[in-house]
Amino acid sequence: MLAAAVAEAREGLATGGIPIGAALFGPDGTPWGTGHNRRVQDDDPATHGETAAFRNAGRRPSYAGTTMVTTLSPCWYCAGLIRQFAIPHVVIGEARTFPGAHHWLAEAGVTITLLDDPTCVEMMETFIRDHPTLWNEDIGV
Amino acid sequence: MLAAAVAEAREGLATGGIPIGAALFGPDGTPWGTGHNRRVQDDDPATHGETAAFRNAGRRPSYAGTTMVTTLSPCWYCAGLIRQFAIPHVVIGEARTFPGAHHWLAEAGVTITLLDDPTCVEMMETFIRDHPTLWNEDIGV
Repeated sequence: MLAAAVAEAREGLATGGIPIGAALFGPDGTPWGTGHNRRVQDDDPATHGETAAFRNAGRRPSYAGTTMVTTLSPCWYCAGLIRQFAIPHVVIGEARTFPGAHHWLAEAGVTITLLDDPTCVEMMETFIRDHPTLWNEDIGV
Repeated sequence: MLAAAVAEAREGLATGGIPIGAALFGPDGTPWGTGHNRRVQDDDPATHGETAAFRNAGRRPSYAGTTMVTTLSPCWYCAGLIRQFAIPHVVIGEARTFPGAHHWLAEAGVTITLLDDPTCVEMMETFIRDHPTLWNEDIGV
């Protein structure tokens, strides 16, 4: 499942953007939608990886049994999305380069799978080193 | 300030959508961006009133001194946005028809002004009564 999110992150990087990708999978494991951060590409501060995947999954009456996969631990904004729509499982590539709000989600009953994937860590470490101002803009710091 | 959010909510209703609007104001009180829920209009579950106003405000290096005005208490998703980007003040039309997460924001240090505005209450009461399924879809219930 992480491969779909990593592919989105790489697509984001290749188009000049912030390399964070996500994918929302339905209860049967089929992908409902994937997406990546589009701050740079669309001048859109509201589209993070997770919100892009959620949007691209279209309108759904229920998120029961779904899994959100993301290359990076979700920020408060994306964690709020996951909580509001009761997405029950979140798979996270890494939380080393950004702590995110996955502990808060876990406390709210969301199942968290933290992979600590070296590819995801390397991608974000390189990006943050090369583009610190852009990264801080994306997380409101 | 509420008038700008109410105007957006009415525009949303007039175009067949969910009547929730918001406006983000800069530190000097000038409007940075306004917007409304676009679930119906764009088949976009990721655009709530607050996220629309935030998007339409464009890319910003800082949200210090800003005020988010919304016709309805922010859901977890929109509250997460406000927290992540450290928007320090939220003005809320009403929280009767949906409790929202404004207490959580207050605990995190956000100044909350709850107006309990009858126009906002009436607009949502009528909408929820007439479109309960659509409303539940928008809040993931």
